[in-house]
Amino acid sequence: MSFRIEKDTMGEVQLPADKYWGAQTERSRNNFKIGPVASMPKEIIEGFAYLKKAAAYANHELGVLSIEKRDAIASVCDEILAGELAEEFPLVIWQTGSGTQSNMNVNEVIANRAQVLAGGKIGEGEAVLKANDDVNKSQSSNDTFPTGMHIAAYKAVVEVTIPGVEKLRDTLQRKSTEFMNVVKIGRTHLMDATPITLGQELSGYVAQLNHGLKAVRNTLEHLAELALGGTAVGTGLNTPNGYDVVVAKHIAAFTNLPFVTAPNKFEALAAHDAIVETHGALKQLAVSLNKIANDIRMLASGPRSGIGEIIIPENEPGSSIMPGKVNPTQCEALTMVAAQVMGNDVAITIGGTQGHYELNVFKPLMAANFLQSARLIGDACVSFEEHCAIGIEPNHARIQELVDNSLMLVTALNTKIGYYKAAEIAQTAHKNNSTLKETAIALGYVTAAEFDEWVKPEEMVGSLK
Amino acid sequence: MSFRIEKDTMGEVQLPADKYWGAQTERSRNNFKIGPVASMPKEIIEGFAYLKKAAAYANHELGVLSIEKRDAIASVCDEILAGELAEEFPLVIWQTGSGTQSNMNVNEVIANRAQVLAGGKIGEGEAVLKANDDVNKSQSSNDTFPTGMHIAAYKAVVEVTIPGVEKLRDTLQRKSTEFMNVVKIGRTHLMDATPITLGQELSGYVAQLNHGLKAVRNTLEHLAELALGGTAVGTGLNTPNGYDVVVAKHIAAFTNLPFVTAPNKFEALAAHDAIVETHGALKQLAVSLNKIANDIRMLASGPRSGIGEIIIPENEPGSSIMPGKVNPTQCEALTMVAAQVMGNDVAITIGGTQGHYELNVFKPLMAANFLQSARLIGDACVSFEEHCAIGIEPNHARIQELVDNSLMLVTALNTKIGYYKAAEIAQTAHKNNSTLKETAIALGYVTAAEFDEWVKPEEMVGSLK
Amino acid sequence: MSFRIEKDTMGEVQLPADKYWGAQTERSRNNFKIGPVASMPKEIIEGFAYLKKAAAYANHELGVLSIEKRDAIASVCDEILAGELAEEFPLVIWQTGSGTQSNMNVNEVIANRAQVLAGGKIGEGEAVLKANDDVNKSQSSNDTFPTGMHIAAYKAVVEVTIPGVEKLRDTLQRKSTEFMNVVKIGRTHLMDATPITLGQELSGYVAQLNHGLKAVRNTLEHLAELALGGTAVGTGLNTPNGYDVVVAKHIAAFTNLPFVTAPNKFEALAAHDAIVETHGALKQLAVSLNKIANDIRMLASGPRSGIGEIIIPENEPGSSIMPGKVNPTQCEALTMVAAQVMGNDVAITIGGTQGHYELNVFKPLMAANFLQSARLIGDACVSFEEHCAIGIEPNHARIQELVDNSLMLVTALNTKIGYYKAAEIAQTAHKNNSTLKETAIALGYVTAAEFDEWVKPEEMVGSLK
Amino acid sequence: MSFRIEKDTMGEVQLPADKYWGAQTERSRNNFKIGPVASMPKEIIEGFAYLKKAAAYANHELGVLSIEKRDAIASVCDEILAGELAEEFPLVIWQTGSGTQSNMNVNEVIANRAQVLAGGKIGEGEAVLKANDDVNKSQSSNDTFPTGMHIAAYKAVVEVTIPGVEKLRDTLQRKSTEFMNVVKIGRTHLMDATPITLGQELSGYVAQLNHGLKAVRNTLEHLAELALGGTAVGTGLNTPNGYDVVVAKHIAAFTNLPFVTAPNKFEALAAHDAIVETHGALKQLAVSLNKIANDIRMLASGPRSGIGEIIIPENEPGSSIMPGKVNPTQCEALTMVAAQVMGNDVAITIGGTQGHYELNVFKPLMAANFLQSARLIGDACVSFEEHCAIGIEPNHARIQELVDNSLMLVTALNTKIGYYKAAEIAQTAHKNNSTLKETAIALGYVTAAEFDEWVKPEEMVGSLK
Repeated sequence: MSFRIEKDTMGEVQLPADKYWGAQTERSRNNFKIGPVASMPKEIIEGFAYLKKAAAYANHELGVLSIEKRDAIASVCDEILAGELAEEFPLVIWQTGSGTQSNMNVNEVIANRAQVLAGGKIGEGEAVLKANDDVNKSQSSNDTFPTGMHIAAYKAVVEVTIPGVEKLRDTLQRKSTEFMNVVKIGRTHLMDATPITLGQELSGYVAQLNHGLKAVRNTLEHLAELALGGTAVGTGLNTPNGYDVVVAKHIAAFTNLPFVTAPNKFEALAAHDAIVETHGALKQLAVSLNKIANDIRMLASGPRSGIGEIIIPENEPGSSIMPGKVNPTQCEALTMVAAQVMGNDVAITIGGTQGHYELNVFKPLMAANFLQSARLIGDACVSFEEHCAIGIEPNHARIQELVDNSLMLVTALNTKIGYYKAAEIAQTAHKNNSTLKETAIALGYVTAAEFDEWVKPEEMVGSLK
Repeated sequence: MSFRIEKDTMGEVQLPADKYWGAQTERSRNNFKIGPVASMPKEIIEGFAYLKKAAAYANHELGVLSIEKRDAIASVCDEILAGELAEEFPLVIWQTGSGTQSNMNVNEVIANRAQVLAGGKIGEGEAVLKANDDVNKSQSSNDTFPTGMHIAAYKAVVEVTIPGVEKLRDTLQRKSTEFMNVVKIGRTHLMDATPITLGQELSGYVAQLNHGLKAVRNTLEHLAELALGGTAVGTGLNTPNGYDVVVAKHIAAFTNLPFVTAPNKFEALAAHDAIVETHGALKQLAVSLNKIANDIRMLASGPRSGIGEIIIPENEPGSSIMPGKVNPTQCEALTMVAAQVMGNDVAITIGGTQGHYELNVFKPLMAANFLQSARLIGDACVSFEEHCAIGIEPNHARIQELVDNSLMLVTALNTKIGYYKAAEIAQTAHKNNSTLKETAIALGYVTAAEFDEWVKPEEMVGSLK
Repeated sequence: MSFRIEKDTMGEVQLPADKYWGAQTERSRNNFKIGPVASMPKEIIEGFAYLKKAAAYANHELGVLSIEKRDAIASVCDEILAGELAEEFPLVIWQTGSGTQSNMNVNEVIANRAQVLAGGKIGEGEAVLKANDDVNKSQSSNDTFPTGMHIAAYKAVVEVTIPGVEKLRDTLQRKSTEFMNVVKIGRTHLMDATPITLGQELSGYVAQLNHGLKAVRNTLEHLAELALGGTAVGTGLNTPNGYDVVVAKHIAAFTNLPFVTAPNKFEALAAHDAIVETHGALKQLAVSLNKIANDIRMLASGPRSGIGEIIIPENEPGSSIMPGKVNPTQCEALTMVAAQVMGNDVAITIGGTQGHYELNVFKPLMAANFLQSARLIGDACVSFEEHCAIGIEPNHARIQELVDNSLMLVTALNTKIGYYKAAEIAQTAHKNNSTLKETAIALGYVTAAEFDEWVKPEEMVGSLK
Repeated sequence: MSFRIEKDTMGEVQLPADKYWGAQTERSRNNFKIGPVASMPKEIIEGFAYLKKAAAYANHELGVLSIEKRDAIASVCDEILAGELAEEFPLVIWQTGSGTQSNMNVNEVIANRAQVLAGGKIGEGEAVLKANDDVNKSQSSNDTFPTGMHIAAYKAVVEVTIPGVEKLRDTLQRKSTEFMNVVKIGRTHLMDATPITLGQELSGYVAQLNHGLKAVRNTLEHLAELALGGTAVGTGLNTPNGYDVVVAKHIAAFTNLPFVTAPNKFEALAAHDAIVETHGALKQLAVSLNKIANDIRMLASGPRSGIGEIIIPENEPGSSIMPGKVNPTQCEALTMVAAQVMGNDVAITIGGTQGHYELNVFKPLMAANFLQSARLIGDACVSFEEHCAIGIEPNHARIQELVDNSLMLVTALNTKIGYYKAAEIAQTAHKNNSTLKETAIALGYVTAAEFDEWVKPEEMVGSLK
């Protein structure tokens, strides 16, 4: 491998000749060999590309950067957004907690790549762009990293998480409507209870997801606030007048998302409560999805020794030893994702508590966990929808068999003969392994005609809409 | 102790003669000796009192309960709300996960107390009220407990949490304004950075709390949804037509809070995502408060070997061995509360995932953790405001000394001489233990006059509003 | 209420005349109105009583305290241990994070009570004992609180947690042996799998609890280390030579537990990793108990629409609306406890991370959460054992019915005809709703005789021991 | 891209012609598009390679597999262990919770690769090995995945985590010894306290890490237990007699680690408490490391407006905007890792609770989180040691300045003049901004000579060893 030499304020550094990154990136590579290489999420790099381009536009608009430099910066940013420089960002999550080194990684790549695009060679001749003075102009790691983090987080939520959840929600809604009249046994405490319809059951899941989606959306206004313009400590030192508003405007334009400048930059650097807030809502979705997936696998359990009230798609052989076995694997993937999101929530919470003075230095940790959660929820909902939810069908025979045998239909008699006599009927039928009707008549509490008139499962499920 | 005998559907139970509770309460007392007695939060009992009264009113309004029974129920509920029957609720959190036994505890106390209020004796003569058929009419534990939980949670948030946080927020806001021109050193990574004012620093805390308050309020619409009317499995079995809307109306009237009936009762019984959602916002507040309290104790550290930029009230001797020691004890209480809330969030999250079919059976756990968090945050904010925040004062001499010595003022030179030369100045001054100005001049990068004109801490803090 | 005046180093304080506590306790009462009063766990107060008595003995033994003062201190400590002064400890968890105020509460109560026991009046005449100089001699809050915390924690674990878990483990072991030959269907992924015996299933639970007990015991050596003797910062300032070893010896003698002085006092004050460590093992137990309780309620589900393979005791009416319903309430209490312990683990973890320099100031938080977990696990296991595990019985008819119908018995044919043909049999039988045997023969892969010889559920369960 | 067709028990699947994986792997690729591809940790694949080879040896040794098949399997396993087939394992964590598909991925790759090694073509001619009948012989996913998980986890802990922590521990130990006589101010509650030496302070960190290492080692006995031999549900169906012990013996030999067969296979499949247990100890290490790293960055804070008692290495420019800034970046990476591990602990805890009946189906989640934690801790400790701890030096001038000014030296007077007078001295000196000595004399409590004799910081730090 051939090398070149770059220097920064601390001295010279040897680095791979064929890479655009510079001295500070290389120092970080050497100083932070923690976990897999290049673990800094690519969504963060993309967020940086948006904001570097926007900063260049704002700096030019406000008269502190030439149009040539603006365009040189923008060209490389566009290449990054097109995925063309993916190999140029080798740093890890576990670096400085401000993400300074990833900011410098982007600055260095833009400066060096611009040199080459202009026909020059890295480190030779007049610099087209200086990493700190031009590319990072009117910026600090302290405001760029949280800005990149918010851009990445917002995009992930609206482009991956929400569409994924909505896709699943829509299918469950359709299934709920379709099965609204399928009367089945209800279960509370895992024990037989009064009847419900399969459609009603599914409607509860739909309601959960709708609440979760609303909760996520409630948080987006906070997440749309950008730190950029605060620079080092939130005061906006070394930025031209009006810069924060202008740069946010450009970011909003480039991303087509409603970003605005944060009204209070001190909060935006020193705390990342917006990340805590939105991830709290993602965690709520995880809680809901766990409930839904767990119910579905229990309802589908069997085929002969379980509940077996619904049938779900058979997607793959389920066992390397038990022939013919099929398992609720999509439910398993989804509940594992839910557990991961709940764990990530704690990591983010802890990171969020640890701002000191003017800066929170758990930024890469918070970003990485957030982005993993946002993507996993979205992807897992799509997978679950396509390979499980879409194929849910009632097992009508099994459902009817269980309704017919249920003792909890006795509840319909409460308002006729009182709770105590009704209880006696149920307990006696259970003990004698007999039917409710037989027992009710034998005990003399109702006639056969009364029983038939009063105990109708299909009339015990309320209004169906 | 003297005893009396009651019976329920399972048979006879012996219980204390002087207590109003009945057979099912007593069974629970005997079957669940887990942790301290009577741990079920009193706020839940109050929530039950509201809803039992409202149910009686709704049942009467809809023609299924006599006015005499309605008023008998309401009278006892009013006594409970007045705190007069506090000794009658001996059950623990760690009972059935539906809270059935606490629902029956309330039903039994209302029925037996009404008997006595009517001049009768418990268990003798015609029953004024039957616990199941009258007091629990049109209800199930499965819809009453979550309703009581939402009433208690909503009240705690709006009566304790929010006012407490607002009180602290207001004081910090006032202090922020008061200290807006006190220029001090900023710190990032715990290291000296460019200047900031004390008022700016505090404004970040205010912004955090405002965001947190908004996040909490965003969740209240979900929390205002009441399960009542769903009865056993969400279908509303054994309720009169229109009951759910009417009963929510009465609860709203009695509590003067905007409760409504849950549009989807299946969700309201089987999941408690509203509790997860609002507690997620409480956790966000905990994260913010932890940051704020931790900053304040670091800024106040010393008196001679710490940061010492602010002075906080001395409330009590700080050490049993070190004479004259004073500690940031309110910060410690507040950060301990924050840690508790973060732990509670995990307990609630886990509870929230575990609904099975038509019922979540982690209700008492979720309620207890929620109510503890809501109260602790509110109480701790008030305590912190009264005994710490209100007395925060700048230590002007110390602040000035540190500003004067700071090397990071060099940042102001970036836009004049470039980042690299500025870095050389700072590094040289640090190595030689000299001042920035001396060094800058010695290196020949600026004149004394330029330095004085360009490096003005008070002009490095941006606009002060 | 009548009052008296006490003073401390900060001045005078008015406090209730009928209480033994003094100025610093009263300041804390006034300054920390957070959550319910007197929430500091009584086990911590008891821990203090042991250590104050031991310190008095050590101080006397080492020549720095008179025998009269030693005995005066010891007498009050004995009263505290006898529960006679329970009303004298009104402070809350949410005070200073070192627990200084609870240490002073104990010091003050001992000094004032000794004055009265000696025939004097509080605050009048020559003091029999001085709170700081005598009762707190050779101590600091910084070493007493963690010592009291370790004493309380160790005792709770060995007196409540371990015996509770062992009681449950023993019953499960007995049931496992009893049901070792009850062949039933196994289930993986909630789906039917190859056979297992009920005894084998239960043996897995026993193994979990044994591993958990071992894990807890592994941590006790760390928990047995006491901070006492470190005083303010771990250096042992103001203690007589050899004091730390002697005082630990007395604590061991008084508690009859193997306490020793911590080899490194700096760790013992600044970190509470021993609490983190032991609670980690309690959390492991919670994980195991959650698995066990959840399995049992699923196995017992029904009575007619669930799994129904085992029968558990019916302890109380299960529903206020559904007559005759019985629920797995002990499982619910136990799983709620498990969720609480998991939440507590996070609170303790966060508290444990936050030591600063020479002192961790999350001590009361960590102590309270630990003690709650230790007690809840112990109590809940006893409750579960007495009201559920002890009554577990197989539902033989149901078990046989499910074994007879199982398709996964086909696995026994793998080694005879290969996985692929076996899979075809199972899939065909499932599709045609026919039996394995019929299908196997129809497909021509085995003869009836071969099937009967090769497919014997009772021979598919391995060795039974 | 060219394709080939394979079939499994569900039918035909089209897959890339140049890959060794087969139908079930391809189904999983298509059915689980969740998160980044190939996220299943490579350590798990290596674990599988060990166990597949061991199973082949055991099967041969016990007479159920030919030596040719044994060696064919072993050869491919050796290739996998040499990293030669890294592109052949494309599956994700978020698949079936039993990891069945990764087990089949390994089975298929071994079978197809062996076909090629034997000179054949995939899917053509007589199969050298059958994926299910030969490679998976005497195995199930249900016992192989947890076995692979334990192998991977054990190796990661002893090869990465423990050596990393030990390396840091050793350096801190050396520094502790080196600085044992550097007397400095102690700090409790972040406030000035009595003196301590820098070596004593560091010794506390060493003690923490030693306790953590011991805690980890305590768990390894459980982690050394292997599920292999339990097959589908723990009964060992379809394994030759004695297989479980023999296969564990081979795994121990191949890995040179003390693996044994799990005494109870039901626990080993249905619960993963060993993972919970060991990760609990990793979390304890994270707690300790967080404390240590946080202390070090606070002690090193400054350079002019912080504590500044120690100097740590300057590794890279710290700011993109503030020239000359250097930050405690290794501390930040380490505390971010700590937060991640704490989050992972919750994910693992939740996964651990959710076993159902005979199988826990959160295996890949638990494995992935465990392995991330184990590696991050080890890597981060090495990084922290090499780039921070190794360079810690006292700032003697600053340390002396702070000791000289401290008010808490007054504590030495407690035993001479009592706590109250000592407090008065400290408070007066603080108020008057004067020295302790001046004040003590002025108040008339001590003479100058007494003060000099009694108040010697170097005698207030106890014995130094």
